Amino acid sequence: MSSPSTDPIPVAIVGASGYSGEELVRLLLHHPSVNLAAVTSRQYSGQTVAQIFPKFASHPKSRTLRFTDPNPDTLARAARIVFLALPHGVAAEFAIPLLAAGCTVIDLSADFRLRSAATYAEFYNHEHPAPHLLAQAVYGLPELHRDQIRNATLVASAGCYPTSILLPTIPLIRAGLIKSTGIIADSLSGVSGAGRKAEVDYLFCECNESLRAYGVPKHRHLSEIEEQLTLAAGHPVTVQFTPHLVPVNRGIHTTLYLAPAEPFHNATEAAALADRISACYRDAYANEPFVRLLEGKALPDTKNVVGTNLVEIAWRLDPRTGRLLAFSAEDNILKGASGQAVQNMNVLCGFPETTGLQ
Amino acid sequence: MSSPSTDPIPVAIVGASGYSGEELVRLLLHHPSVNLAAVTSRQYSGQTVAQIFPKFASHPKSRTLRFTDPNPDTLARAARIVFLALPHGVAAEFAIPLLAAGCTVIDLSADFRLRSAATYAEFYNHEHPAPHLLAQAVYGLPELHRDQIRNATLVASAGCYPTSILLPTIPLIRAGLIKSTGIIADSLSGVSGAGRKAEVDYLFCECNESLRAYGVPKHRHLSEIEEQLTLAAGHPVTVQFTPHLVPVNRGIHTTLYLAPAEPFHNATEAAALADRISACYRDAYANEPFVRLLEGKALPDTKNVVGTNLVEIAWRLDPRTGRLLAFSAEDNILKGASGQAVQNMNVLCGFPETTGLQ
Amino acid sequence: MSSPSTDPIPVAIVGASGYSGEELVRLLLHHPSVNLAAVTSRQYSGQTVAQIFPKFASHPKSRTLRFTDPNPDTLARAARIVFLALPHGVAAEFAIPLLAAGCTVIDLSADFRLRSAATYAEFYNHEHPAPHLLAQAVYGLPELHRDQIRNATLVASAGCYPTSILLPTIPLIRAGLIKSTGIIADSLSGVSGAGRKAEVDYLFCECNESLRAYGVPKHRHLSEIEEQLTLAAGHPVTVQFTPHLVPVNRGIHTTLYLAPAEPFHNATEAAALADRISACYRDAYANEPFVRLLEGKALPDTKNVVGTNLVEIAWRLDPRTGRLLAFSAEDNILKGASGQAVQNMNVLCGFPETTGLQ
Amino acid sequence: MSSPSTDPIPVAIVGASGYSGEELVRLLLHHPSVNLAAVTSRQYSGQTVAQIFPKFASHPKSRTLRFTDPNPDTLARAARIVFLALPHGVAAEFAIPLLAAGCTVIDLSADFRLRSAATYAEFYNHEHPAPHLLAQAVYGLPELHRDQIRNATLVASAGCYPTSILLPTIPLIRAGLIKSTGIIADSLSGVSGAGRKAEVDYLFCECNESLRAYGVPKHRHLSEIEEQLTLAAGHPVTVQFTPHLVPVNRGIHTTLYLAPAEPFHNATEAAALADRISACYRDAYANEPFVRLLEGKALPDTKNVVGTNLVEIAWRLDPRTGRLLAFSAEDNILKGASGQAVQNMNVLCGFPETTGLQ
Repeated sequence: MSSPSTDPIPVAIVGASGYSGEELVRLLLHHPSVNLAAVTSRQYSGQTVAQIFPKFASHPKSRTLRFTDPNPDTLARAARIVFLALPHGVAAEFAIPLLAAGCTVIDLSADFRLRSAATYAEFYNHEHPAPHLLAQAVYGLPELHRDQIRNATLVASAGCYPTSILLPTIPLIRAGLIKSTGIIADSLSGVSGAGRKAEVDYLFCECNESLRAYGVPKHRHLSEIEEQLTLAAGHPVTVQFTPHLVPVNRGIHTTLYLAPAEPFHNATEAAALADRISACYRDAYANEPFVRLLEGKALPDTKNVVGTNLVEIAWRLDPRTGRLLAFSAEDNILKGASGQAVQNMNVLCGFPETTGLQ
Repeated sequence: MSSPSTDPIPVAIVGASGYSGEELVRLLLHHPSVNLAAVTSRQYSGQTVAQIFPKFASHPKSRTLRFTDPNPDTLARAARIVFLALPHGVAAEFAIPLLAAGCTVIDLSADFRLRSAATYAEFYNHEHPAPHLLAQAVYGLPELHRDQIRNATLVASAGCYPTSILLPTIPLIRAGLIKSTGIIADSLSGVSGAGRKAEVDYLFCECNESLRAYGVPKHRHLSEIEEQLTLAAGHPVTVQFTPHLVPVNRGIHTTLYLAPAEPFHNATEAAALADRISACYRDAYANEPFVRLLEGKALPDTKNVVGTNLVEIAWRLDPRTGRLLAFSAEDNILKGASGQAVQNMNVLCGFPETTGLQ
Repeated sequence: MSSPSTDPIPVAIVGASGYSGEELVRLLLHHPSVNLAAVTSRQYSGQTVAQIFPKFASHPKSRTLRFTDPNPDTLARAARIVFLALPHGVAAEFAIPLLAAGCTVIDLSADFRLRSAATYAEFYNHEHPAPHLLAQAVYGLPELHRDQIRNATLVASAGCYPTSILLPTIPLIRAGLIKSTGIIADSLSGVSGAGRKAEVDYLFCECNESLRAYGVPKHRHLSEIEEQLTLAAGHPVTVQFTPHLVPVNRGIHTTLYLAPAEPFHNATEAAALADRISACYRDAYANEPFVRLLEGKALPDTKNVVGTNLVEIAWRLDPRTGRLLAFSAEDNILKGASGQAVQNMNVLCGFPETTGLQ
Repeated sequence: MSSPSTDPIPVAIVGASGYSGEELVRLLLHHPSVNLAAVTSRQYSGQTVAQIFPKFASHPKSRTLRFTDPNPDTLARAARIVFLALPHGVAAEFAIPLLAAGCTVIDLSADFRLRSAATYAEFYNHEHPAPHLLAQAVYGLPELHRDQIRNATLVASAGCYPTSILLPTIPLIRAGLIKSTGIIADSLSGVSGAGRKAEVDYLFCECNESLRAYGVPKHRHLSEIEEQLTLAAGHPVTVQFTPHLVPVNRGIHTTLYLAPAEPFHNATEAAALADRISACYRDAYANEPFVRLLEGKALPDTKNVVGTNLVEIAWRLDPRTGRLLAFSAEDNILKGASGQAVQNMNVLCGFPETTGLQ
């Protein structure tokens, strides 16, 4: 889909009633180069977008566009690009007929993020529903795989935690500046990451004034984190990943503990290493519209990125331990999900990458 | 139950897995004059209190006491006093056999708070399940009905909003200092008031950073508020009541708009009226252990009462409008529910009223 | 300033480091028809916008535009429109020379919101610093005073609480549908309303899990609320206003207690009155881009308007009390401050009113 | 002070207006074996405890006990035990005369937590104010140093982060089950940890909906963490410590990344190691009243310990990385500060250790 069309491209969202789906609706309603032609939700079928999401009611289309039951045939007729904001497993079931019907699919679930169906089965506890599609899927993290996304028909938009972990580490791995062993990622996530599900664990009173780790030691997102790091390193990489649930609506903060490939023994060596790290990050991200490299004393803070598609990154060498610490902050629903999905669409449609995201 | 026994009184809680039930467990585990003999929860049947509520795990009994399925016969054999922390409608079904078996019942639901079965049917949308018991039930607000509670076998512990509204108004009504017409109660409640129910409306992300009125203009608690005010006034009283949901775990704040019975026209009259209001509140509450009358510039703040059984009350005369404003703050789960239930128990057992509540 | 220019209009912000100032910076950086030429802050003088507000760092101008010390001469040379985001009293000191130098001034403080210098002195406890300017100032609430704003040189952008109170009441007052007596406004505000001031009362731990009324019974905003209602009614109006501080970052929710001008005695009369109220609101706001009249069961919720310039309004007739309840929700920093200021600018510059606000 | 007296021991608090001081007031007002004889606060001098802390107003003494200016002579006459809730540097200035006058001092600051004045100077950026007292000071973490605390005259109550880190690691270090190298502690803290200081960084709107690391890579608390681990290991230990500020009032959650002393290569070896870790923790803490070892799937959650003096600890072996993860949760103001200080007092006075803490 390399040549941008002048007419708005018809797009659809399957599963538009969750937090990511809602944000996709917002972004695509306002996107100047697409026409949001269909949104599906079994739960809200027949109601307008404005009725379910009053905050979008001032957009005229929100008052006419109605949720429908999801039907691949109808979707394929209505849209050229279909976004899947569905649980894993279910997403693949929609991808199969939509791709067969000639649609481009941008999947926000984990179904097509792994190249290995075996790894999928290990981490998601069921056989992959469409292993034959894995080879054609592209991992949708534009800063790392922009060229492949351009020609993709199936984009597996990168996950929220993986985005916060891969962006600070991949350039260092590629440049050989850090060891690929011993990587630790300690992450904090807002509660929207759990989705809009009626579960007691995510009630206000269960999350407010609560701090807790969960999903240790083998969270599902490890699979894509490790596969991407393995691809970058050229050999298998294992990661220690600890997610924590903290009482904010949105935001992921990640602290990474990394080992420089070559240790530094004094201030001179530290300064030289710091220069190489700086240069490495600048090379990777200085021209990236959605990555902000912090300088000076500033450290990432989710409140600076929530509501945007930006990732903040900062780092420190610790002369006491010899480690390199890296920090990132992002909005888990934007750069971690729906913003990234739109960014992927912009790339594959040849739109300027920031279209509809500023 | 007027003579306090020296042996701990065996007590039970039916429906101990919600927020009020959990707090009752905490209070009764530590209460020096009772023995928590049984706790029921269909959901957690067979598990220990410590397993479900780890925060109580340091109390030895929490590691041996197990939730059971609720069975009135078993409960009646195990306990002399049974607390019902159940939804309305269900509570009455348990009260009937328990009372028949000779237990004293302290009900935290709304089932026995009204004298009129017709009013109950109007506000709760179903026939009262045990209208023959209404006459023997006592409204469980000790500051207003202590004498009746002493001899009660069925105490309908007062509701959270009603407590915050009745305590500041009843003394003024009884003293004839305010009109019984035109009363407005504007209340804010923390999310625990909605219970530990898996509903999307009470998810963290749906409540955090949200302010909203609900249940207008005819919230169920109006029925008991108006019945109690009507009893105090000696003639029918209608109240305007607007509850709001705000993002705190616990706490109710109420602002009351009242009309002095006799208007004041100048500073001298205002000062005279202020003296009478002060005296009225002092007469009513100066010796009440759980009512704190604020003086000077202080206004109630839920953060000063959360975690306690206290109600803070303050008031202001407004010379510009001629109105009397009254303010109250309480912990909706303590003075608004479980603390009040224990206070009621202390009264009817002849224990010092603050036992286990400080 | 009735003819829109094709070149971007140079604008400046005085006092750009508070919450309203920061939001103005954001709005004006992205506004397509203006050029943000100067921002002042004594505290941050010399630093770039991007350094102080990293969330704006992806806008190129944020990396070159530097805060300066506020100097009226310099500002008048740099900008045709100057926004004052300053404390009351201080704002007037800047307005005097800026107006003299030919600038248009949009003041976010309370300094020019009242026509009466005496009322100002009564509510703000100091003499008005520029009483000669009061006659030329226009109250900046476009939905009510659009025509005057078009030709104004000094716009006193309406306050946050007043906006939430006046928008639901003025049309009813003008139409004679409610009495002008006995009006009660009960409001809840997020903590950003207190400004970015280092005071213990607004620390996280002092506000989180806290609900409290404040500023009763004579909050400063009453002065402009009453003056505007008095203008609409044609005779003096006194209002009961109770603000509460609740733990959200942003948002104001107001519940209004109003008396229909003619009482209704049965369902037929209630339905007739409801029709007139509906029609009144539709006449007033159906074409307003920033007012959303809720229908059906929906009630305003700040989470639906935070981040937008919208006000949500709903209402209910209460057959039990005969009252009319009205509810509104807004973002206190957008429609309550900076969004409204930009809306005022759009009106007076002849830009489409939603420019830069969607 | 080994023989418990029957008369209440007179105690005093210097610096009682911060969060830790306030909590100490609460604990000591209700402690059955002491008499809170004096509380100091320059800011509140002359006012009663009830006036400043209305939540304690129901305790009779709160209405008579007045804050005074801090004067060592007066304090030494009034109290046998003096708690210092002061900033570091200032605390030592009070400790010197109080110890000279024969008082026992329990210091909540960092002034006497280190044995090395040089380390103090390195981490606190000023010379130690009383290096001659360091040798007599005892590190106040009863679970680790109970015997020394019993005979102490100067107890340096352990810090909040250190408590959450040392309790899960010291038993493993002492038992040789983990390496003393490569330890990483990743901690989350509520905002009360920053104290009741009027600083913009800790305003509600700056902390709410914000997640950020700070104080990296050399937070002051590292000094005592490393000194205590060094003492336990018998050789120098360096730690990687990253604190994060998250929007809760209270609570610290720590995730520790540890390396087993001997690697495990298969499930059998992992099970054997797990048994040794379990046994090690049980030996250390099974009888500790304030340490709760979680079993099964449960992980620490601050909401289970806030309001208590408990620390929750859990751990996991990760077969994928070979690491041992340990987790802890505590109330930073109770077990992390004031509760621990009272626990230290109980130990040195020979009171049952849980007195006044349940």
